[in-house]
Order: sequence, then C-alpha cells, then structure tokens
Amino acid sequence: MTTILHGNLIHTPAFGKLETIHGGYLVLEDGVIQGVYRVLPEQYAACPAEDYGEGLIMPSFADLHLHAPQYPMLGMGMDLPLLDWLDTYTFRTEARFEDTAYARRVYRALARELIACGTTRVAMFSSRHTDATLVLMEELERAGVTGYVGKVNMDRNGGPVQETTEDSVAETLRWLEGCRFAHIKPILTPRFTPSCTNELMAELGKLALERGLPVQSHLSENDGEVAWVKALHPDCGQYWETYQKYGLWKSGALMAHCVHSGRREQEAMAEAGVWAVHCAASNVNLCSGTAPVRELLERGVHVALGSDIAGGDQLAMNKVVVMSIRASKIKRMETGAAFLTVPEAYYLGSAAGHLYFGGGAGFQAGHLLHAVVVDDSAMPEPTRELTLAERFERAVYLMDRRHIKAVYSEGIERLRQIPGPEKR
Amino acid sequence: MTTILHGNLIHTPAFGKLETIHGGYLVLEDGVIQGVYRVLPEQYAACPAEDYGEGLIMPSFADLHLHAPQYPMLGMGMDLPLLDWLDTYTFRTEARFEDTAYARRVYRALARELIACGTTRVAMFSSRHTDATLVLMEELERAGVTGYVGKVNMDRNGGPVQETTEDSVAETLRWLEGCRFAHIKPILTPRFTPSCTNELMAELGKLALERGLPVQSHLSENDGEVAWVKALHPDCGQYWETYQKYGLWKSGALMAHCVHSGRREQEAMAEAGVWAVHCAASNVNLCSGTAPVRELLERGVHVALGSDIAGGDQLAMNKVVVMSIRASKIKRMETGAAFLTVPEAYYLGSAAGHLYFGGGAGFQAGHLLHAVVVDDSAMPEPTRELTLAERFERAVYLMDRRHIKAVYSEGIERLRQIPGPEKR
Repeated sequence: MTTILHGNLIHTPAFGKLETIHGGYLVLEDGVIQGVYRVLPEQYAACPAEDYGEGLIMPSFADLHLHAPQYPMLGMGMDLPLLDWLDTYTFRTEARFEDTAYARRVYRALARELIACGTTRVAMFSSRHTDATLVLMEELERAGVTGYVGKVNMDRNGGPVQETTEDSVAETLRWLEGCRFAHIKPILTPRFTPSCTNELMAELGKLALERGLPVQSHLSENDGEVAWVKALHPDCGQYWETYQKYGLWKSGALMAHCVHSGRREQEAMAEAGVWAVHCAASNVNLCSGTAPVRELLERGVHVALGSDIAGGDQLAMNKVVVMSIRASKIKRMETGAAFLTVPEAYYLGSAAGHLYFGGGAGFQAGHLLHAVVVDDSAMPEPTRELTLAERFERAVYLMDRRHIKAVYSEGIERLRQIPGPEKR
Repeated sequence: MTTILHGNLIHTPAFGKLETIHGGYLVLEDGVIQGVYRVLPEQYAACPAEDYGEGLIMPSFADLHLHAPQYPMLGMGMDLPLLDWLDTYTFRTEARFEDTAYARRVYRALARELIACGTTRVAMFSSRHTDATLVLMEELERAGVTGYVGKVNMDRNGGPVQETTEDSVAETLRWLEGCRFAHIKPILTPRFTPSCTNELMAELGKLALERGLPVQSHLSENDGEVAWVKALHPDCGQYWETYQKYGLWKSGALMAHCVHSGRREQEAMAEAGVWAVHCAASNVNLCSGTAPVRELLERGVHVALGSDIAGGDQLAMNKVVVMSIRASKIKRMETGAAFLTVPEAYYLGSAAGHLYFGGGAGFQAGHLLHAVVVDDSAMPEPTRELTLAERFERAVYLMDRRHIKAVYSEGIERLRQIPGPEKR
C-alpha cells in the first residue's frame, strides 16, 4: 500500500548536514520510504495522502540510554550526592518493580509518553525483575516503541535490588525465553562493573557470544566510579578492559557516559565498534563532568544520545539534544573544542540511533519511516518569514508534546492511539 | 473582602529555607496575605474559599532580565557567534517594533505567556521605540504582569536600531510622560556601555537622580565585551566604574550577567546595593561563561534570576531555575563552590525578585499574594507517597504551563482570562 506524506521535510542525511524541502512529498510503500520529492511524481498522483500542511516532518528521536524503573523518580533527589541518590532513590524505586501490576501502570505511562514526545527507538535498562522486564517490553511494543530492553544484572553492591549470581544467570535465561516481541529485542545488561562479580561477567560474556546478543552498560561516568573499578580489577589498566576481559567489549556494545574516557579508551571504542551514549543532562545533574563528545567523534567513535532518566530529568529527546548542545558549549569554554551545532546534535539524538538499529540517517529510501510531525504555528510570531532551517532550530529548542501532531514508528502512525496529557 | 486558599502550601521564607504545610490555608484580605495556617482559624470559617485540593500553592516567579522584542526570535540563531547573533537576529528583530500593530500582537502574546508560566513580576528591556514600549507596558498591565519596563537607550554601535543622542533623550522624556500604569513602572535602560555615548550616559544619570528612577543594564557578560568597555573608558579600571561615573551605579540598579565580575566589582555591587541578575541559560547559549553566583551571594550581593530571552531560550522561570542549578553544578566542577540547591535556586527565581519590588519572601503577611498553583497529578506515578519537599522539587524540574492551574498577581487570580495554549 502506498501512502504520501505532504509537508515541510527536514532531515539530517549525514552528520552536520541539514536538508529541507518546503512543501515536499514523502512516499511510503507499506511504511517503507520510497523517496522524498519536491514535486510528487505522476505515478503517485492518485495515492492517499496525509497532508500536514505547514507542519515540519522530521526524523523521530532515538534514546539510547534510559532506566525505565527510574521513571517514577523523575525530577527528584537532584540535590543528593551520587551514593545517597542511589540509596535513597534509585535502588528503593527499582525494588518496587517486584510488583508487576505496578510495573504495568508505570511502564504503560512511560511507553505512551515516549511516543508522545517523538521517541520511537530506545535502548533501555529495566530493573533486575524478569517479569516486570517482560511487562516493559510488552508495553513498549504495544505503544509502538522499538529497540532493545535489558533485564539488569547485579550480584554485588546492589542494596535492595541485588541478586545472587545463580539467580541472575537463571533469571536472565528465563527472561530470554520470554522475549518474543516483534520490535523490542533483548540486550544483555550488566549494570556496571562494580555491580557484577567476575563470575557473572564471564557468564554474560559467554551468553553474548553464544547467542549473538548485544550488550549495554556504563563506562567512565565519574571519577569515584573509575577509581572503584580500578580497585576491583587491579589487573586492568583501564575501565573498558574490565568489559573486554569477559567478552562484553564488542561491536555494537552501548556504553553510557564515557565522560572520563581518555585517549586509549576512546581508541579502544573506535577499534571495537563500541558506541558511546552521551547523557548530557544526567552528567550535569550528578556533577559527573562534561563528556568529550567532539573528541570521541574525531576519533571515529559512534556517538548517540540518551536521556538517562532519572539521572537525567528530561524524557523528551529534543530537550536532551539541547542539553547536549549546552554541554558542548561548556566544553568549548573549557577546551576550545567546537560546540555541537543544532543539526549535529539533532543527528546524534536521531539519525545516529536509527543507524544503530539498522535504519537510515534522515529519510533514506528503503527504510521504514520513523518521524515526528511538529506544528509550530503557536510558537511566537516571527518578524519575517522564517527559513525551514530556522523553524527546525526553533522546534528543537521549544517544542514539547503539545506541538507534536503525529509520530511514525516502523512506518505506522502511533500517536493517535495515545491519550492526551489531560486524559492520563 | 476575605478569601481563603486551601491546598498544599510551599514557600521559601529565607534563602535556603523551605517550608511546607500539607492541606494548609492561606488567608487573604483584599488580596493581602493575612497569614498561613495548618488549621483554619474559627473567624474565617464562613469566608469563601478556593479549594485547590492536592494542588501545590507556591510563590510565583520573578524574571528580572529579559528583552521583550526578542520574543519573536526565541530558540533561534544559537549556533552563531555573539556579534553575528546581534547583527543577524537581535537588531533586525528589534527594528521591527517600529510597527506598533506588530508590537501589540507580539507583546500581548508575551504577556499572556508570562502569566501562563507563572511569572508575575518582571524587569524588562523593550526596544528603543517609545510607542512600542508603551504598548508593551499596557499589555503587561492588562495581563496582570507587574514590575519595570525600560525603553532602551542606544546612540552608538546600534546598527539599525541606533538613535541620535538628542532623540534618545527626547524620546525617553516622551516615554516617561506616557507611563501611567498602576503596576508597570519605568526603569532607565542604557543598553550597555558600548551602546551609549558619554553624553547620553550623563543625561540618563541626571534623570535617574532628579526623578529617583531605577536603572537596569548589562555588566561583565563576556570577555570581549569587558575588553571593549575598557578600551572605550581607559580611565575606568573596571566595567562597573563606567556606570558609576555617570550616576548610574546606585542602590537597586539591576545588572544582568556579572559572569566576569571579579572581587572588586562584586564588592562595589554589595556596597552600592546593586543587584546581579543571573541568566544561566543565556550565558551557556552564548558561551559567555558561568557566573560566580555563590561568590556573589557570599559577598553580600543581592542576586535574582533572569530568563534573558532571547539569549536565553526558555521563558518559563522554573526552567531558568533549573538552568541556574545546572550552571552552579558546572561551576562546582570548576571551582568546588557549593551548587545551588533546589530551594536556594527557587528563592533566587522567586522570593529575591519579590523582595526587589518590595514584596515578601515566601507567603509573608502584609504583602499582596503572588503565587502559582501547580497540579502535579499527571506526573509519573511515584513508588510511595512523596513528601511536599519532593513534590516541590519535581514540580520545579518538570512543570510546564499545562500543570499551572492558577496564577495570583497582586492578590488577584489572572490565569482564567488567558487563552489556553491551543487557543492562541
């Protein structure tokens, strides 16, 4: 079935490159992009069209690092030092997901909020709970969010959410058994090196190899953590080697933060094809530092963005894109490194994540459509007609879910089924 | 007339101090706060009450530095260096306010948006245009926004919005003639030292003295500007002295930014009773630096917050409060200075501004009520019952105009007359 989307097309086909078409046409065949046109080709003239008028049709967002069970604590505990924050909020909040009925309510709300904010692809941490993790995957699938979810593994230093090594392995296998979703797939998730015994790390590495499973974890987030990892693994010169040692340092592994990754660690990422997930809001909120994003990019490391809720306080990825611009300006003031331009930061929060999951950068033909449609007509009246590049920038800075009029995920519009903010 | 507000009362009666009353009562007599009670005193039992149920009743916000004619360019031009930003956007945008019909539309929308976001007190820059400035004051007054507005003076380095010295003085007098508003008063507004000849500065200083008018301007925003001022006034050791020299450095003067104010300048502020207006979002967006807020406070300088639109991209002051927390965390990582806690930053974005205009910090008896009522029921379902301090923090981080259910300014509820976001 052929569908036409008509409106202002704005996308980033390459890092730093912005393409705009005023009043253009996006042609889909069963949700797969056929092409982008300034003038509609004759053969499509009779096809049904969605006319978004002056709306901005832009690639949707991808959030490659967030903790689903921390959604209930969004925007709280921000004045606490990291360890108190973990103890007072994080672990206690995650412990509540023993209760799958509670998990159902929270995860349904989260999945809907993701779609409402235009996020259609995720790589997500769940809690250690197998059943709640399967509920999370089911709710994401239902709402139209695609990507990876991981049951968290943590058999040490885990407070009320710690597991035994045996349970951690057995539950991981039980969870993998239960993963039968079309668009949400499992990803192995050792929380971070201090949370996992060597034995558990080895088991997960084996599983990653045997089943070809992807991996996500944390890397070099703050100085105290880096020193702790060093104390736990005196044989490893650097943090990343603790993952490599157990077969968890592999192509496509997602490593959140990388704030304190030095040259050698960055080169190891580039070599192995490990991705850095930059979480600017969280890094400032928790006083972790400002990640060397430009340096990572220049060394050839793949970089994507993460909201990292609830260390991050913003689920909406356009806000995360803006925070990554701000963080890069802070970095520029420190080091002189060029800051991220709006198209660059948008690429990291959108195209990079789509590429990670095998999609295209921008509206590339041959890929299922992932897009948001933004109505910017209620934004402040400008002094003159704006270019699409200006409207794009303004949308990235100012939009919230009120401005998002449609969200396409895997070629299908998913927003219409989500209740409005007043109806939750 | 006596009115009772019932709900959860949350306020900051002193810097760093948070007081909460669950299900409390705020008693007003003709809009003036009589007291705050856990249990309603007998004598008020029969008075009409507004029951906000589980709503959070908190002091409203005060925005002590923003440029009204830059509202049309909100969220744009952020990738440009400062001078291009000024030339491409700022001055051209301001030039458009020659047209008072355009000014009317933009300023009406701005005034309504301020109320909708809970900002009830402002100190605002207009453009150089007298008529548009009077329109701005009228629209603020009509919407219920109170405070100061200044016609901008700039007789050099002003591109398309420069005036002659004579016109600048004559138009300032004409503007002062036209200022007959109950709640919006004039403030003298030399844009900043590089924009004003010595002659103009002297005239404005004379006017400030003769008529007892307050003053607002910019101070030590970025390094290039500081060097420029030094070149223009080789006789002045420091930036602040260029204002002092002409009688513009006086108690209650509002100086935006103070990012690069050193010890001597800070001491001069404390001595003279000059206020620093901290604009965290703008300072990051324009790569100006991070202001030494803790240092200013410790030296006894009064500090308030400003959105500084459109260098700042956020009009909503709760977002500005959050940005000032983030900036203070950046500063902490640089210097070790304690970051701003949520109650501290809220105080700066609310109580400090109310005090500036002669109001009270928090819900102090004897002052007209300035408050917002926040409905946080649609925020993520928590794992347990939250304390009011937690709900307060979450509201500061997460709220947007959808959550604001009432806004009191000068004792009167003003939100009900503002069209909803969909109706603009």
